[in-house]
Amino acid sequence: MTQLCNYTYDEITIGQQARYKRAVREQDIQLFAAVSGDVNPLHLDAEFAATTRFGERIAHGMLTAAFISAALAMELPGPGTIFMEQSLRFRLPVKIGDEITVELEVIEKNDRRKSVALDCRAINQHGKVVVTGTALVIAPDEKLSLPRPAEPRARIGD
Amino acid sequence: MTQLCNYTYDEITIGQQARYKRAVREQDIQLFAAVSGDVNPLHLDAEFAATTRFGERIAHGMLTAAFISAALAMELPGPGTIFMEQSLRFRLPVKIGDEITVELEVIEKNDRRKSVALDCRAINQHGKVVVTGTALVIAPDEKLSLPRPAEPRARIGD
Repeated sequence: MTQLCNYTYDEITIGQQARYKRAVREQDIQLFAAVSGDVNPLHLDAEFAATTRFGERIAHGMLTAAFISAALAMELPGPGTIFMEQSLRFRLPVKIGDEITVELEVIEKNDRRKSVALDCRAINQHGKVVVTGTALVIAPDEKLSLPRPAEPRARIGD
Repeated sequence: MTQLCNYTYDEITIGQQARYKRAVREQDIQLFAAVSGDVNPLHLDAEFAATTRFGERIAHGMLTAAFISAALAMELPGPGTIFMEQSLRFRLPVKIGDEITVELEVIEKNDRRKSVALDCRAINQHGKVVVTGTALVIAPDEKLSLPRPAEPRARIGD
């Protein structure tokens, strides 16, 4: 079983990077609609979406933001991170079947608050930047290494 | 069947407000973990969460952000909105059973870009502000009134 590890504040260095990859499946858009309540036809109805400037269904922007927050919580700094602030700029639409890679880079440390600022970029399989932003987190003070929990299995339908 | 309506750029006024309410169920945290890949034990494992500063499982911060984006997409401006930017400040933890109300208020309009800035606040059932931020969106130019789609039913497990 793989381990879920973190980087403590003291271990983190300016310029440190991490990556987190995630594919956007048809089901993810349905699940995101179920969990957020955003059932906008741009996300769920192919016929409606064809009439919009996007020409096809697109993922909720906040789904990509969820990948960014997962990258922070799972990779850098990892478990024990406290999420303080996030800025997001939605640059390009994300479509069903896209493979999104979140790239994180540490740009600032604040010794007094034990906070860390990270540059966040989400990039699609064509190398295009779809979302950018900056995260501010409190880094863990305790080293953790836990068995990596399995992802819950979710499905759409009764 | 209720309708899903929007406000066009021209209809929107500074100071205009909207609300969007959503309860955080146990299942929502599982679904958010499944969709984002963030299986941090702080969200999923009661025993682990009891050892943290929060004392119990908390929701992913980005789940509340998903409610904010749903408020923009479903209520104000509503369908046809293009999401440009979002800032988020996570102020207090959100727990299972919390009832979150997102309050939106229009604070700025830009006639050239047809963009609208909205102040966003997510408040729990005790009246405490859990997340604040500002959204920048392009408002719809076309009036829409659609049959409100049903929320997809999602469940955890095989």
